Amino acid sequence: MLLEKTTRMNFLFDFYEALLTDKQRSYMQLYYLDDLSLGEIAESYGISRQAVYDNIRRTEAMLEEYEIKLALFHKFKKRQRVTDQLIKSLSAAQLTNEEIISLVEQLKQD
Amino acid sequence: MLLEKTTRMNFLFDFYEALLTDKQRSYMQLYYLDDLSLGEIAESYGISRQAVYDNIRRTEAMLEEYEIKLALFHKFKKRQRVTDQLIKSLSAAQLTNEEIISLVEQLKQD
Repeated sequence: MLLEKTTRMNFLFDFYEALLTDKQRSYMQLYYLDDLSLGEIAESYGISRQAVYDNIRRTEAMLEEYEIKLALFHKFKKRQRVTDQLIKSLSAAQLTNEEIISLVEQLKQD
Repeated sequence: MLLEKTTRMNFLFDFYEALLTDKQRSYMQLYYLDDLSLGEIAESYGISRQAVYDNIRRTEAMLEEYEIKLALFHKFKKRQRVTDQLIKSLSAAQLTNEEIISLVEQLKQD
């Protein structure tokens, strides 16, 4: 599994897991957080590997759909960039109060 | 309609409208944003006042369910409090850089 996709799915899961069913949440947790293989998940639930695979693929698509609609991960990254910039500049005392206020105002938006 | 409820529904609608159907979105928009009466909405859609009422009540319940699950409005208010405090203190130059950094760190959380 590509690291980039795993990281993205971990974030999307974090933001939207409350919108998933218990079963979807369980499979995603075992696959993405606990790093179990599809075969291992299938065995522990007594179902086919294909059924687990299909469920996880559908859940991934749902998470991407939610991200298109609500953009929580996107907004989170945007805020991270601004807060990181603020903290770095504040630590180096590189900003005037007016510049700091302007950045904080950006954080109020979403 | 109570002003407090209207304000809350306007916010919840703002955060979760992407998760509603087109019909739900239309009724909510006419009722809460455009301030039409249930009777006026019913007339323009050629359906009963009761049908509009039921749809809007169900949508309100859905929005509250999404808020229980995702808490976007709650987190927004929390960030607003911190950013307002930051801006007020920065304007009055009441905070040390360390205090500012600690508040910005809070904003990174959610």
